[in-house]
Amino acid sequence: MNQTEKGILLVSCPDTEGIVAAVSTFLFSNGANIVHSDQHSTDPVQGHFFMRIEFSHPNLLEKLPELEAAFAVTASPFSMQWSITAISKKPRVAIFATKEDHCLQELIWRWQLGELHAEIALVISNHNHFRELTESAGIPFYHVPVTKDTKAEATAAHFSILEENRIDTVILARYMQIIPEQLIQRYQNEIINIHHSFLPAFIGGKPYQQAFDRGVKIIGATAHYVNEQLDEGPIIEQDITRITHRYNVTDLKRHGKDIERIVLYRAVKWHLEKRVIVHGNKTIVFQ
Amino acid sequence: MNQTEKGILLVSCPDTEGIVAAVSTFLFSNGANIVHSDQHSTDPVQGHFFMRIEFSHPNLLEKLPELEAAFAVTASPFSMQWSITAISKKPRVAIFATKEDHCLQELIWRWQLGELHAEIALVISNHNHFRELTESAGIPFYHVPVTKDTKAEATAAHFSILEENRIDTVILARYMQIIPEQLIQRYQNEIINIHHSFLPAFIGGKPYQQAFDRGVKIIGATAHYVNEQLDEGPIIEQDITRITHRYNVTDLKRHGKDIERIVLYRAVKWHLEKRVIVHGNKTIVFQ
Amino acid sequence: MNQTEKGILLVSCPDTEGIVAAVSTFLFSNGANIVHSDQHSTDPVQGHFFMRIEFSHPNLLEKLPELEAAFAVTASPFSMQWSITAISKKPRVAIFATKEDHCLQELIWRWQLGELHAEIALVISNHNHFRELTESAGIPFYHVPVTKDTKAEATAAHFSILEENRIDTVILARYMQIIPEQLIQRYQNEIINIHHSFLPAFIGGKPYQQAFDRGVKIIGATAHYVNEQLDEGPIIEQDITRITHRYNVTDLKRHGKDIERIVLYRAVKWHLEKRVIVHGNKTIVFQ
Amino acid sequence: MNQTEKGILLVSCPDTEGIVAAVSTFLFSNGANIVHSDQHSTDPVQGHFFMRIEFSHPNLLEKLPELEAAFAVTASPFSMQWSITAISKKPRVAIFATKEDHCLQELIWRWQLGELHAEIALVISNHNHFRELTESAGIPFYHVPVTKDTKAEATAAHFSILEENRIDTVILARYMQIIPEQLIQRYQNEIINIHHSFLPAFIGGKPYQQAFDRGVKIIGATAHYVNEQLDEGPIIEQDITRITHRYNVTDLKRHGKDIERIVLYRAVKWHLEKRVIVHGNKTIVFQ
Repeated sequence: MNQTEKGILLVSCPDTEGIVAAVSTFLFSNGANIVHSDQHSTDPVQGHFFMRIEFSHPNLLEKLPELEAAFAVTASPFSMQWSITAISKKPRVAIFATKEDHCLQELIWRWQLGELHAEIALVISNHNHFRELTESAGIPFYHVPVTKDTKAEATAAHFSILEENRIDTVILARYMQIIPEQLIQRYQNEIINIHHSFLPAFIGGKPYQQAFDRGVKIIGATAHYVNEQLDEGPIIEQDITRITHRYNVTDLKRHGKDIERIVLYRAVKWHLEKRVIVHGNKTIVFQ
Repeated sequence: MNQTEKGILLVSCPDTEGIVAAVSTFLFSNGANIVHSDQHSTDPVQGHFFMRIEFSHPNLLEKLPELEAAFAVTASPFSMQWSITAISKKPRVAIFATKEDHCLQELIWRWQLGELHAEIALVISNHNHFRELTESAGIPFYHVPVTKDTKAEATAAHFSILEENRIDTVILARYMQIIPEQLIQRYQNEIINIHHSFLPAFIGGKPYQQAFDRGVKIIGATAHYVNEQLDEGPIIEQDITRITHRYNVTDLKRHGKDIERIVLYRAVKWHLEKRVIVHGNKTIVFQ
Repeated sequence: MNQTEKGILLVSCPDTEGIVAAVSTFLFSNGANIVHSDQHSTDPVQGHFFMRIEFSHPNLLEKLPELEAAFAVTASPFSMQWSITAISKKPRVAIFATKEDHCLQELIWRWQLGELHAEIALVISNHNHFRELTESAGIPFYHVPVTKDTKAEATAAHFSILEENRIDTVILARYMQIIPEQLIQRYQNEIINIHHSFLPAFIGGKPYQQAFDRGVKIIGATAHYVNEQLDEGPIIEQDITRITHRYNVTDLKRHGKDIERIVLYRAVKWHLEKRVIVHGNKTIVFQ
Repeated sequence: MNQTEKGILLVSCPDTEGIVAAVSTFLFSNGANIVHSDQHSTDPVQGHFFMRIEFSHPNLLEKLPELEAAFAVTASPFSMQWSITAISKKPRVAIFATKEDHCLQELIWRWQLGELHAEIALVISNHNHFRELTESAGIPFYHVPVTKDTKAEATAAHFSILEENRIDTVILARYMQIIPEQLIQRYQNEIINIHHSFLPAFIGGKPYQQAFDRGVKIIGATAHYVNEQLDEGPIIEQDITRITHRYNVTDLKRHGKDIERIVLYRAVKWHLEKRVIVHGNKTIVFQ
């Protein structure tokens, strides 16, 4: 008995004629129905082409290997980078946090409301503050202290926790430690950070103080993939809020939190729904 | 010698399997290259399907009748409503205005900047105020007074001016007269009005006074197609601005103007670029 | 030993000359220092005048009766309505909820973060769903079922719970029952409701369905004081979010929740900080 | 026969007790009625205090010297910096422009609508493009070419034009030349520039290209006073607009223009209405 299932096809390749026709004909002739498709070309002549297709297919999970093998043939002449994902397989997520709970709270809350397409598999923190908050939501909590002298051990602990729990995606929910290069390389474009400024303004650890000192009239937050350059990874989402001369640094932090949690939530949601394609240092976000 | 030209294909039909494949294969096999496509389905099973495709084609203008004849065959089994438009043929636009110039100014300005894909063929007004403004932009100006006793003559004059100038689209830029039913029927989904409130709040002639009396904290503007029901046609675009208790009615009008002109501009721009499909009393806007 | 304390003076009276001088001189000569003041006049000649002053005073709590007696003399010739509040006396708040938790969650969370100047004394619900959520935050929970036949008993129960707990302010956090007139009269301008539309558009119980049917491009939420007319009390705060043709009614509800919780939070925060003055059917909000 | 006139009093001084009482009593006892007042203190104990009062006074223009002499006595013990301005004396403004007309257009348009409290006395440009636009609005136009070799002559010409026309305020409406230090010193906090980025992000001459390269999701504009450090003067106003991966650099410029013109307009309007006080490298903006 067939059961219709949803899948997502992501494609990225040099732009040329006939891509849409080739892909849509492939899907049609392999029994898949296009539910929604979105595309982008950086330049119609010499540019790069990106496409995201939501489709439905009978017994997708079972037929996925077959479909992938067949699509490889279609993809090859176009030099496509591509992936097919069955929606029913939810990504497994680990959240890293430190002492500020607003981003962690927001993610757990959204997840409980069914607004995040994920299994939140665990929370890791260098402090023990959020154990109760986490465990009362039914999520395992790992306390991994990080000091100057124990960085190597901490990284090893992180690796083994993430591996054992088959984690796909790591969310840094105001995690105040530098992520080591090995972890970044292992989870390429799968680690999302929230920076508490409107990047590239106010890089570094004290953006609200910097914003106050400069006298800006708007503050913001930025969710981005983590790469080797601090605060310079591909930006997924940003948002802002207006401030006035009446706000001191504490006010900026308080109002900034409201932006941080919503910006991180949106970026995570889009990432989990396979709406984001990284290209160089930029993102294509198919909303 | 071939010259590549851009075209837009709009499709609207009951949703079913294989539409995208059929359309994209048609375009590919008829020498057209898809530059951008966008689609929407109100419901994947029993819904209605909408698609907008920008494509490039050698000598589109010359080959358009051929292409249309061929697409009719593809379209028929899907019961498609469709149109193919060559971008090089700019829509001819008439603007109606009365005594407030901000919307008229904005449209002329945007047009001079090259931001409106149109020929602004003429301005019609029931007053003579904007003759200089209009003519100094090189646009013919028609003064058609409207009084209680001359409505029939005015409508006849409007009709003949619009017909003689082969007008495609009519913009009501704060035109303060009721549009007669014959005109609405002749230019179905081709007359755009700006209403100075966030519809459906504050229908009628004095929305800012009503907004003031109700004590709202936000005011807005709405651009919509004109149909037989006053202020109830399909909405194309809306936007708002925050207000405070300090604003009197004059302040609301002044701030409202800034919203009106930008909302009307956006709606007109999208309409002219064939980004809007009307379905029942709603619009699909492919931005 | 004196301890400096903060107070808030609210004044509302017919506008005339010399009000600011009289009030500021009173405060200065009675040992109070103005920390911040804000004022509004609906019209400098025949209008109404409103003022909110934050001041500091040594031993305010102890000296409050004295200060009030003295200010009555200053206030009388101006026919002022006025109040002096010591900030250290936090208002006692009751939250009413039904089955949707997002507004209740937001209020509890903000309160835990120290962002609401209140004692949340209790939660009342006509269902038992939120007992754990409420009690785990250390807040007493009262389950008061309401059926067609038990309305009178329910109202009596509400009254006695509110009186026994010396409640100052009632928040309807998506409480889906009509508030009886006796309660409204007892708590004049002290009951705040969140309506899930951009009032006055879409009054009634199904605003998101109505918004969907009308095809609006923006949805909103409205926090207002509850008076005898359903959805027509003085508006405290409104906000909106953009939507597109892609959103179905479920999407509207989901996105609407994010607006509802933030709009209600802001209105409650301002009310608790004595920033809102009701005048007729409108509010002055001194942010 | 007395005629009531409006004035604005600006005060800036170290915060201490009794300032509001002293100022409001002064105004009251000198026959002035406070129409609106606004104040700000950076810190109630050790901070700096700022106040803006709109008042009405019979025959203000005639009595201004008297009033100033009297207020000097009140101001002295508080070490106030202060000014009293009669609203009827409009500031005289010079606009500098180069080749982009959107900011110049917006300012002229707003001025024609009566939304700028100023005399636009003249436009200066290093090109001759805007002569017709300017002169058709009845504003004198000065063409002062600037080349590498003629900078000194150009500056001399600027000085003499500004002095002869008794200019109070200079607006750089996308003027693409560096302002020499002498001019900055002569017109301290009276030269307003619009920078086409959300400062401090993207300092320098090609902010839209930089924004495109960084892949930001929001672009902005900043209006600021010009001081000796390029793009680092006190910020008056900023605003932003969302962008997507679909925007190329040309799109960013086009959308950016809409932000630039509105941000510059707001900053100029507030400056002309004496709503802005500069303190160090920041502004207090009393809206």
